[in-house]
Amino acid sequence: MNTLGSFTIRKLTGLSAFRTGMFRLLRSVSGITVFLMGPILLVSQGTRDYNPKQMAIREKVFNTIVSCFKRHGAETIDTPVFELKETLTGKYGEDSKLIYDLKDQGGELLSLRYDLTVPFARFLAMNKISNIKRYHIAKVYRRDNPAMTRGRYREFYQCDFDIAGHYDPMIPDAECLRIVSEILGELDLGDFHIKVNDRRILDGMFAVCGVPDDKFRTICSTVDKLDKMCWEDVKNEMVKEKGLSEEAADMIGQYVSMQGGMDLAVRLLEDPKMSQSKQACAGLSDMKQLFSYLELFQVTDKVVFDLSLARGLDYYTGVIYEAMLGPAGESLSVGSVAGGGRYDGLVGMFDPKGRAVPCVGVSIGVERIFSILEQKAEAEKVRTTEVQVLVASAQKNLLEERLRLVTELWNAGIKAESMFKKNPKLLSQLQHCEESGIPLVAILGEQELKNGMVKLRTVATREEVRDSCVCVCVCNSLIAIKSRQC
Amino acid sequence: MNTLGSFTIRKLTGLSAFRTGMFRLLRSVSGITVFLMGPILLVSQGTRDYNPKQMAIREKVFNTIVSCFKRHGAETIDTPVFELKETLTGKYGEDSKLIYDLKDQGGELLSLRYDLTVPFARFLAMNKISNIKRYHIAKVYRRDNPAMTRGRYREFYQCDFDIAGHYDPMIPDAECLRIVSEILGELDLGDFHIKVNDRRILDGMFAVCGVPDDKFRTICSTVDKLDKMCWEDVKNEMVKEKGLSEEAADMIGQYVSMQGGMDLAVRLLEDPKMSQSKQACAGLSDMKQLFSYLELFQVTDKVVFDLSLARGLDYYTGVIYEAMLGPAGESLSVGSVAGGGRYDGLVGMFDPKGRAVPCVGVSIGVERIFSILEQKAEAEKVRTTEVQVLVASAQKNLLEERLRLVTELWNAGIKAESMFKKNPKLLSQLQHCEESGIPLVAILGEQELKNGMVKLRTVATREEVRDSCVCVCVCNSLIAIKSRQC
Repeated sequence: MNTLGSFTIRKLTGLSAFRTGMFRLLRSVSGITVFLMGPILLVSQGTRDYNPKQMAIREKVFNTIVSCFKRHGAETIDTPVFELKETLTGKYGEDSKLIYDLKDQGGELLSLRYDLTVPFARFLAMNKISNIKRYHIAKVYRRDNPAMTRGRYREFYQCDFDIAGHYDPMIPDAECLRIVSEILGELDLGDFHIKVNDRRILDGMFAVCGVPDDKFRTICSTVDKLDKMCWEDVKNEMVKEKGLSEEAADMIGQYVSMQGGMDLAVRLLEDPKMSQSKQACAGLSDMKQLFSYLELFQVTDKVVFDLSLARGLDYYTGVIYEAMLGPAGESLSVGSVAGGGRYDGLVGMFDPKGRAVPCVGVSIGVERIFSILEQKAEAEKVRTTEVQVLVASAQKNLLEERLRLVTELWNAGIKAESMFKKNPKLLSQLQHCEESGIPLVAILGEQELKNGMVKLRTVATREEVRDSCVCVCVCNSLIAIKSRQC
Repeated sequence: MNTLGSFTIRKLTGLSAFRTGMFRLLRSVSGITVFLMGPILLVSQGTRDYNPKQMAIREKVFNTIVSCFKRHGAETIDTPVFELKETLTGKYGEDSKLIYDLKDQGGELLSLRYDLTVPFARFLAMNKISNIKRYHIAKVYRRDNPAMTRGRYREFYQCDFDIAGHYDPMIPDAECLRIVSEILGELDLGDFHIKVNDRRILDGMFAVCGVPDDKFRTICSTVDKLDKMCWEDVKNEMVKEKGLSEEAADMIGQYVSMQGGMDLAVRLLEDPKMSQSKQACAGLSDMKQLFSYLELFQVTDKVVFDLSLARGLDYYTGVIYEAMLGPAGESLSVGSVAGGGRYDGLVGMFDPKGRAVPCVGVSIGVERIFSILEQKAEAEKVRTTEVQVLVASAQKNLLEERLRLVTELWNAGIKAESMFKKNPKLLSQLQHCEESGIPLVAILGEQELKNGMVKLRTVATREEVRDSCVCVCVCNSLIAIKSRQC
């Protein structure tokens, strides 16, 4: 399809239907391309529906994450999916071109939120909140090139946890790292590690290596590419594209290859060059402090002080971090699964008097996690409902009795259903249980009805009991099934 | 501000800030209006942030609703917040003007979803699903006139439950009504009632009253206004604006004043005029059937067959319903809190071969419910975190010990926090517990540390115990607190 010019593509209404795959819309008839029009059956590029199985996986991941956030005492907030365009302007640097704007339909100029951090800062300033520990789970929007098999979408979830307030240094920062570690551990994604660095250490390093002040941010962006490019290419970009001197680049090269723990911070504090930068020293002392708290939080084995970590966003002012799957030094291709850092200046940008509220936070990259877990679950059977019992009938003309019984079960708070047919076959009722994993069937028959009883069958074992007190019987059987599974 | 022309308003960047209310941006200086520019601190018109207290209420409502949907065996899906514009085109009649479009930034033409029903139908057709019981909770978007105090927003949640598939008539329809009844009962909103009608009964009624075929839909829209306008005004609109004969209007007037239960359906089946319409008879027989199922589902006391109920949307084909707060005949001003009906033709509009999938569903109007519950909770204290224990210190220099203990508690799955200060005052730690409702404080002191113990205090009663096994002690105390509260 790429041979069609974009003009042609735009002129053909409904053309996006050719991507549906449900029926052939495009044929080549003696060399002439013919479009067969049909209903539109698509979602927008870079977005997707979640089917029930995917939703079951998503719910499990969210439950793990929210439990962790709540264990750490967070409240939650929500903000609108779109913000005034001005709110987002000037916050994302080059990436601003990826913001989705709404059409001007007469009224305000609006944009879809790009992350949850800027709306959070706006919320704090607008409500004059100077300290809060909050989480926010919601979708954000970026007009980026999607790579959907690797979990990169244009509409995707972010799970953010942030701590705002004036506190003693590095305590909230360390708690954020503990949270990342708890979540990635509990999600059972295999080995992982978290890289940390500090924007002040980076800036100090740039200064002592002789990078001119006005090139800090652009050189920082180049350093950020070290996870995807080799050092030679990164150096090339610095020297040839960004006009840095070869000596400065080489010196940076030495530093960014360093990895370690508290020991590295101690060593660099004594480094003849680094120690000349006040900024670097402030960052390094805090890094030392951070590692001492990480020790108390029992997560030092997961955290690596890595001078090559730079992070893309402009608003970071202190500690930054990024979590990768795989053991340290062997990041898997999936990219980072969590990231964040300290941003002490953002709230002040929204405050009329510029009052700053220091913040530190972390964002869990759940889409990549979903992708991994979905691939793992491909062959598995995942239950998508929680029905505990199906009310079935063995003979015809028992619809009323079934509906009466299912009502009793609902009244008792039991998750139950009955088929929407007047006379379903027993076999198809039992098949439905097996397909959707319903553990129990309550079977009504004329004989049982005469005796005021019901037959309860455990689907997996085919064991049967007869009882008159169906609700109690269902509850007991469910407890029995549960204890057998334990 | 309305005296400014829209041109002027558009030209003044940042002007929306005048609505912020945080600082005066607009002053009248000797008759000349002066704009003081400042940072933007607003959310878009008709949208709102949810603060932690509002989120706590929202979570409770969602839990009630989701539990009910799951009790009835529903799976869940999710769809993107925007759809291809074509997907929404031609589905909402006059209301299409309220759809939010995205700006054409080169690529597809996109619109924010207007409801969850059309995306659901698109999802079914796209994935060739012919039967499913699913719920979907998500935000939808309408460029309507907001009335935020009454819970009417431009961005608002819908909680939809739908049953798709070819089944015996009225069984799924009755289950939807049972679900509405369960949810409104459990949310404890006071008395409520559900009006039901059927599009076929309405159309049959229009036919026997002499409404021309091509005026069915527009007369139906006028009838729909009976919940806000008196009969005289409705009749006027029919006769003067829509050109209906006075006799036809009067005849309609007689029918739409009728309310009842199964008896009314039986009576109308024998009505000399109504019985002439095949459509009306089909609808009335089904209504009879519906009431017999509602009886089995134990909800007839909540349901009223009301011939004035019409519903706005075009896509309904059978049963329709709407739930109101207040006893029958005395609807409260809050408007409907749930609504839905049968739409057997919508999925076919998306299917290349026009294959129909009959559907019936209900949407819970949670924003109105939030508004009511928020107003109720205004004076109440609502906990916004779930922290079970605060780790505090009675003396200085115990930060490390606090962090070590809080880590142990997290490891044991206990929701715990400690203040982010090196040396917080005991009083401020205790105050924090009272403010945020934390039931327990674990207090570290030098004496206790020497003995390898911790003091655990119940905040409300000030009871104290000393123990070395803090995790177990916390758990036991929480159980004790819980059982006291029961």
